[in-house]
Amino acid sequence: MQARTEGHSTQSIDRVFRALADPTRRHVLERLGRSPASVSELARPFEMALPSFLQHLKLLEGCGLVRSRKTGRVRTYRLVPKRLQQAEDWLAKQRTLWTTRLDQLDSYLLELKETTK
Amino acid sequence: MQARTEGHSTQSIDRVFRALADPTRRHVLERLGRSPASVSELARPFEMALPSFLQHLKLLEGCGLVRSRKTGRVRTYRLVPKRLQQAEDWLAKQRTLWTTRLDQLDSYLLELKETTK
Repeated sequence: MQARTEGHSTQSIDRVFRALADPTRRHVLERLGRSPASVSELARPFEMALPSFLQHLKLLEGCGLVRSRKTGRVRTYRLVPKRLQQAEDWLAKQRTLWTTRLDQLDSYLLELKETTK
Repeated sequence: MQARTEGHSTQSIDRVFRALADPTRRHVLERLGRSPASVSELARPFEMALPSFLQHLKLLEGCGLVRSRKTGRVRTYRLVPKRLQQAEDWLAKQRTLWTTRLDQLDSYLLELKETTK
């Protein structure tokens, strides 16, 4: 057993960070940050077999970072920023903790300097 | 070949996101955000075999998120915030792109509303 309950949100952030750990998938997210795009538009910059590329899209959709919709024969993908926000929030929280600690250390060192004058 | 050169920094951000994709490793980083800690302090909240836990620490140190130092028989770990910052920067950049796009869409919709009055 782990220190904290492995809830739904923990599993979901695991999957988001895993999805982000690949340059092809990050590139797709960067592209979709500009506008929605079809599979062929998304695949164009990559010299990769289409089935492999589709696996990346499937993984991104599976963890909720993107959503797709089929119109006729064209499937269009768009970004779901809420999921990226979760990952950013976790990182921002760590930075806050760490910065607070540095401030405390700073105050302590200043105090020490004053008392040893 | 990928759309962008797989440089050192791309590989390093891959490893950081992969390291973050695990609740035990995120918990260790959260703990080290408060203060440096020894292996036994870090391992305490987890019911996990020590060799498995050490693998997590090894992975965190391998991608530069933490650093360790041995004094006598005690190995102490501390956070390296610079690496977390890289991941946060990438996410913040995506948010900026996406927000800019929403603002543009907003202006366009307002304009459309004005012209169709």
